[in-house]
Amino acid sequence: MIGTGLIGGSLAMALRKAGWRVTASDRDRGALRQAIRRGAASRACADPREAVRGASVVVLAVPVQAMVGVMRRIAPALSPATTVTDACSVKGPVVDAAARILPWPRMFVGAHPMSGRETSGIGAALPGLFRGRACIVTPVKGTSPLALARARRLWRAAGCRIVRLSPARHDRIVAAVSHLPHAIAAALVRTGLRDPAASRVFSGSFRDMTRIAASPPGLWDGIMHANGRELARAARAFSRELALQVREAGRPGPRLRRMLARSAAARKRLGVPGR
Amino acid sequence: MIGTGLIGGSLAMALRKAGWRVTASDRDRGALRQAIRRGAASRACADPREAVRGASVVVLAVPVQAMVGVMRRIAPALSPATTVTDACSVKGPVVDAAARILPWPRMFVGAHPMSGRETSGIGAALPGLFRGRACIVTPVKGTSPLALARARRLWRAAGCRIVRLSPARHDRIVAAVSHLPHAIAAALVRTGLRDPAASRVFSGSFRDMTRIAASPPGLWDGIMHANGRELARAARAFSRELALQVREAGRPGPRLRRMLARSAAARKRLGVPGR
Repeated sequence: MIGTGLIGGSLAMALRKAGWRVTASDRDRGALRQAIRRGAASRACADPREAVRGASVVVLAVPVQAMVGVMRRIAPALSPATTVTDACSVKGPVVDAAARILPWPRMFVGAHPMSGRETSGIGAALPGLFRGRACIVTPVKGTSPLALARARRLWRAAGCRIVRLSPARHDRIVAAVSHLPHAIAAALVRTGLRDPAASRVFSGSFRDMTRIAASPPGLWDGIMHANGRELARAARAFSRELALQVREAGRPGPRLRRMLARSAAARKRLGVPGR
Repeated sequence: MIGTGLIGGSLAMALRKAGWRVTASDRDRGALRQAIRRGAASRACADPREAVRGASVVVLAVPVQAMVGVMRRIAPALSPATTVTDACSVKGPVVDAAARILPWPRMFVGAHPMSGRETSGIGAALPGLFRGRACIVTPVKGTSPLALARARRLWRAAGCRIVRLSPARHDRIVAAVSHLPHAIAAALVRTGLRDPAASRVFSGSFRDMTRIAASPPGLWDGIMHANGRELARAARAFSRELALQVREAGRPGPRLRRMLARSAAARKRLGVPGR
């Protein structure tokens, strides 16, 4: 497990509970010690290159902007028998980097568990974080079936349902249901609280809609940069839809109600994520 | 209590718990019977004109589009000793209607408790719905101090903190922290779920951000129509902010992180609504 933050730490704890042996590596020594203390790893290695030696599966649980550096670092120590997977929120750039950098790119299987918290770090890790959630896996032409089977087994052991998508489709969908909501929450906080009285009267809906605006900026700017083009496309589609709806609010007639009714019906069909 | 839906029913239950006598009226006979059964009223009147006779405070807890009709209906039965308040999400048009229609407009005090649920009706009512929430009151020049004191006492008895704002400032702030979030949630459901695979992989953040899109369309189209101009203004400011942020996601540099950091800090300062 390369990286023992919220995602790597939670995954390692879940795998340990499922009986896996986990060697953890993190450049932050304090986080690594805490990972051992919290039962997230049976063994710790400061050097990621040493940590991956002899592993059957390596998980890269580092922020997207650290991915290329980590791949370069571990590449010399990988064997053709080692499956590599990751947990990044963006798949196109990561899958491309793996193809370019890893010595056996067929053994790489991109993955993205649809789970998170607005907190970060091993201190916020939970072994049940992935239970019942979708994990999107993004094998490409040439991916080894053995590597795919192993990556699926790993994410299932953590409690995920597996959903298979191409990297491009992943990035488009996740822009719409995750990256755009984060961007909206951040923009809504900044516009909603312009009048100082707003923070004395805001309601539960504003609180819920902006919860994820408290997410770590240093993580989310990397994700938004990495998926910038799809995020821009999703934001344009969304802003058009919002403008259309607000225009209908400005004139009488049944159209606004029909739009809201369509959304209410779709939202009610949605259910609980992955349960 | 004119109207025994989610808001009127919850308010009546809270007042009854605080020892008030409540006469309820609702054009829906079934809802009125249920209000009695759930302990929301000590007495029921099908005719609102009869219900308000002799009351010290009348609460108009009906949708904004029904407000003018109800004011006309009860006007002949009001006495100069009766305070009238309401619970509408929009204040400008309601305060204007009261000035035009009620025989003693000085006795009217606009009010808006910042609480709600995505469900509706007396069946969803809760006596604790308003506990700790802000109730915005919007007295205007000429409002009777006695009426204002009585309205404040009523909303405090339901558990609210009182926040005083002008009707115009109320409508502007509430557009930004309530009506716009509802419009965003509805538009986000429609754009986020365009790819059918999205509903298999969406995460908790998408679920939280769209919860209020399940709100009753027949209630919310009335609110958005009534506050259409302020909603449009808030939506334009928000869309500009979102576009700026998404533009920064498309190019390198520290600006995006700074924007996200500003939002994260503001969100963390926010706390729990009214607690």
